[in-house]
Amino acid sequence: MSLLVVGSIALDSVETPFGIKEDVLGGSASFFSTAASFFTPVQMVAVVGEDFPKAHLDFLRARGVDTDGVSHEKGRTFRWKGRYTWQLNEAETLDTQLNVFQSFSPQLSERHRDAQYVMLGNIHPDLQSSVVDQVKSPRIVAADTMNFWINRTRPELLKTLKRVDLLFVNDAEARQISGEHNIIRAARGILGMGPQRIVIKRGEHGALLVEKDHLFACPAMPLADVFDPTGAGDAFAGGFMGTLATAGGSLDTSVLRRAMVMGSVMASFTVEKFSLERLHEISRADIHQRFSEFKRLTHFDDLPVLDA
Amino acid sequence: MSLLVVGSIALDSVETPFGIKEDVLGGSASFFSTAASFFTPVQMVAVVGEDFPKAHLDFLRARGVDTDGVSHEKGRTFRWKGRYTWQLNEAETLDTQLNVFQSFSPQLSERHRDAQYVMLGNIHPDLQSSVVDQVKSPRIVAADTMNFWINRTRPELLKTLKRVDLLFVNDAEARQISGEHNIIRAARGILGMGPQRIVIKRGEHGALLVEKDHLFACPAMPLADVFDPTGAGDAFAGGFMGTLATAGGSLDTSVLRRAMVMGSVMASFTVEKFSLERLHEISRADIHQRFSEFKRLTHFDDLPVLDA
Repeated sequence: MSLLVVGSIALDSVETPFGIKEDVLGGSASFFSTAASFFTPVQMVAVVGEDFPKAHLDFLRARGVDTDGVSHEKGRTFRWKGRYTWQLNEAETLDTQLNVFQSFSPQLSERHRDAQYVMLGNIHPDLQSSVVDQVKSPRIVAADTMNFWINRTRPELLKTLKRVDLLFVNDAEARQISGEHNIIRAARGILGMGPQRIVIKRGEHGALLVEKDHLFACPAMPLADVFDPTGAGDAFAGGFMGTLATAGGSLDTSVLRRAMVMGSVMASFTVEKFSLERLHEISRADIHQRFSEFKRLTHFDDLPVLDA
Repeated sequence: MSLLVVGSIALDSVETPFGIKEDVLGGSASFFSTAASFFTPVQMVAVVGEDFPKAHLDFLRARGVDTDGVSHEKGRTFRWKGRYTWQLNEAETLDTQLNVFQSFSPQLSERHRDAQYVMLGNIHPDLQSSVVDQVKSPRIVAADTMNFWINRTRPELLKTLKRVDLLFVNDAEARQISGEHNIIRAARGILGMGPQRIVIKRGEHGALLVEKDHLFACPAMPLADVFDPTGAGDAFAGGFMGTLATAGGSLDTSVLRRAMVMGSVMASFTVEKFSLERLHEISRADIHQRFSEFKRLTHFDDLPVLDA
């Protein structure tokens, strides 16, 4: 079924202990769409400036992403510059230039309004709400956010949350939204604000799905070579939502769990190279193989009955 | 089969956001033995002072722990005083009084030398080596250590590691021993120093088993109420080694994985109350139930074949 993402396209400059890349394809919508495109057709609503390389749009289109919703505006593309130390778990932002992204106001075409699965990237909560206003009858609306919006636009964010089925957050964001330190209490607090499902993204420590009566924990694949963590969370969301969109509307726990693992699979590939380079190389066979590796990584047998 | 632990018995004073407890039963050997005692008979080699309450030894004996190897020396028992903030993941040590533990020199009785499973608690590596000298033909020798020994007695620790089959460490210790930041590279580095198996204990983020050709990741049980993390790592090791000792000598991956989960089960109970209070309450039925909860927490279905 159709999957729509509204978010950022950026030109990233990234420094890690392993090298420096300048003006590579980045932004939440880019990582999300590319990861999701392995599972389902993706429609992308975003904005780029006059300096945006056509090759990047060609790459997205070659992956089957519908880029008709990417508007081209006068000015420069959104730019982000960041640096990772050996910790590789949190970027230090060196520079942010919003450029054309500053006045981004997503307008959905008639076709996009029919989307069944909707991902609201990390933008102003009022813009997220405006997207929900525009879609007709989505099966599931998921959202991402960040400390900036939680701090500065809390009332608007709380309004948006009432209209969101699933929220992607990290530990710190969950704590900040809920005012609870314990992560299970934090997630349950947010469950009371609208979403029926919270996905806690924990980087190298994996991800946790919290529903009213269910918990599911998925580790991150332990990798000997983590190259660049940029976009891992967005690729996770893309793998997750892309998998949901293949399940014919089901939100059964087995489907959600598979989505969690596929999210982890896509995130694990993403960090192996800069930008979208690794997602550019892999095939569905690689994805299925890594899914099997996650099974081997986490599987254990039930207790013998005699031992019970 | 027989499981021997050599380590500390302490009187702990602990402050958490939820309360203060003074002079409660602590020490690595206490947590380890109590957790392991649910699975197999445990022999404990440790030292206490004249002030050590008989009630604590009675508690351990009631759990089936053989305390004949606990020597009673002139002076005061080892004391540790620590504080946890809301983070609840790392204690701030306020005071350490080694007392009788300072001159601890484990002497194994003839019976203890027959132990099949041996746990070397966090003591001077030369003392750990002396225990290995004394046991006759152990099936598996596991060890714990800490930054203090890694810093100050590195040559001695490296000698001990050559005689150890399995090492329990946290992320920071693995990095410090190996000189590698990436945790998989760190674990593999340690595999080259002697041990065939490394268990990385990651607190609220679970645990990772690293062997030459196998990886297994087990999450921690996400708990809404974490009361006091003291001893969780030792209870993990106790559940782990206790489970191994029930497997008739097998070190198959299915046995090691069950041991990892049982370690996580015992750690998850331990943090729910102060000291050994929670382990004092639970039954084998509770343990089996939580094992099932870990299965529900982590289980996901294989991909449908049609989808592959």
